[in-house]
Amino acid sequence: MISTKEMKLETAPGFQIVDITRKAEDELSNTGLNSGILVLFVPGATGALTTIEYESGLIQDLKDLFQKIIPEGLNYNHDRKWHDGNGHSHLRASLIGPSLSIPFSKGNLLLGTWQQIIFIDFDPPARSRKIILQFMGE
Amino acid sequence: MISTKEMKLETAPGFQIVDITRKAEDELSNTGLNSGILVLFVPGATGALTTIEYESGLIQDLKDLFQKIIPEGLNYNHDRKWHDGNGHSHLRASLIGPSLSIPFSKGNLLLGTWQQIIFIDFDPPARSRKIILQFMGE
Amino acid sequence: MISTKEMKLETAPGFQIVDITRKAEDELSNTGLNSGILVLFVPGATGALTTIEYESGLIQDLKDLFQKIIPEGLNYNHDRKWHDGNGHSHLRASLIGPSLSIPFSKGNLLLGTWQQIIFIDFDPPARSRKIILQFMGE
Repeated sequence: MISTKEMKLETAPGFQIVDITRKAEDELSNTGLNSGILVLFVPGATGALTTIEYESGLIQDLKDLFQKIIPEGLNYNHDRKWHDGNGHSHLRASLIGPSLSIPFSKGNLLLGTWQQIIFIDFDPPARSRKIILQFMGE
Repeated sequence: MISTKEMKLETAPGFQIVDITRKAEDELSNTGLNSGILVLFVPGATGALTTIEYESGLIQDLKDLFQKIIPEGLNYNHDRKWHDGNGHSHLRASLIGPSLSIPFSKGNLLLGTWQQIIFIDFDPPARSRKIILQFMGE
Repeated sequence: MISTKEMKLETAPGFQIVDITRKAEDELSNTGLNSGILVLFVPGATGALTTIEYESGLIQDLKDLFQKIIPEGLNYNHDRKWHDGNGHSHLRASLIGPSLSIPFSKGNLLLGTWQQIIFIDFDPPARSRKIILQFMGE
């Protein structure tokens, strides 16, 4: 059985890291599926998905890391050409990637105890975002 | 239903970033499937898959980024041992990763409007490449 | 058909990169499945999965790369707050990601000849680890 859902998010301005674990678990419960795969996907080029232990120290460390390896405010070719000031957002999103696959069993996502699913909105402005959740299983 | 396809590509010499979105959509149409998951996979250790807004500014920015964080021409252990001069290609490919999962619904990949699927060939020489596309759905 | 397995690993102290290709192929044989998708997933926030040509030169190059872009021993917020000295491990794992999807056909994983599946344990202490392998196919 396949069930395709859309999760909608309103993000605040600036680099946002949002814990979407609870919403994903709720959507899994709604499907009634027992075991299978959840594929999460960001339909956009400036957002990404990964997992992390969601606590404020690491959230800040992750922001610092991106500012170090792909700084905002460099003179990116994308920004010179399109003037939307988010060249860094695109590069960061391509590096982390738009998709994440998580197995579930007995109706639960098989995440670690200290592991949360995060959506990262790398775009500077506040955005209305959606994330696709596709459940495939039995 | 499961359908496994091979996409063949001839890449030019040097670091190549190829938009394969149209080919993936065509293969999806050929399957006749309505909804499910497309898993793309590179069977090789110097290629990778992600998504990006495919425009020339960002393509150059992505090349600049890799040259900054994983430079070509450092004295890599791999190159000293095997003399094939592509240590940087291997590291870049492992960082981005060989697989990408994209949900589809109503016969269409659920990509964003400005989001394309890219195959990155990190290997310096021209190569005959293949990419696996596996569609699973109904 | 869906088959969910757990692979258990005991890792040595320090940054470990383990080739799990053979074990994944053995588990695939055990399922009796012919074609489909293997999703591998690390249920934990300091481990990750990708592929590489598994040879000692590249293994060292990959360790050097992580020490360069996300050094151990920086004064991470996570470490100041929780004192477990593994802020770098968390950041590295989030960058590579916890999941990997590999198609299989005719009972074989569709890997390249010189491409191995690796589990990276970024945590400094020796750990008892598990990796989820979920096979979905026919």
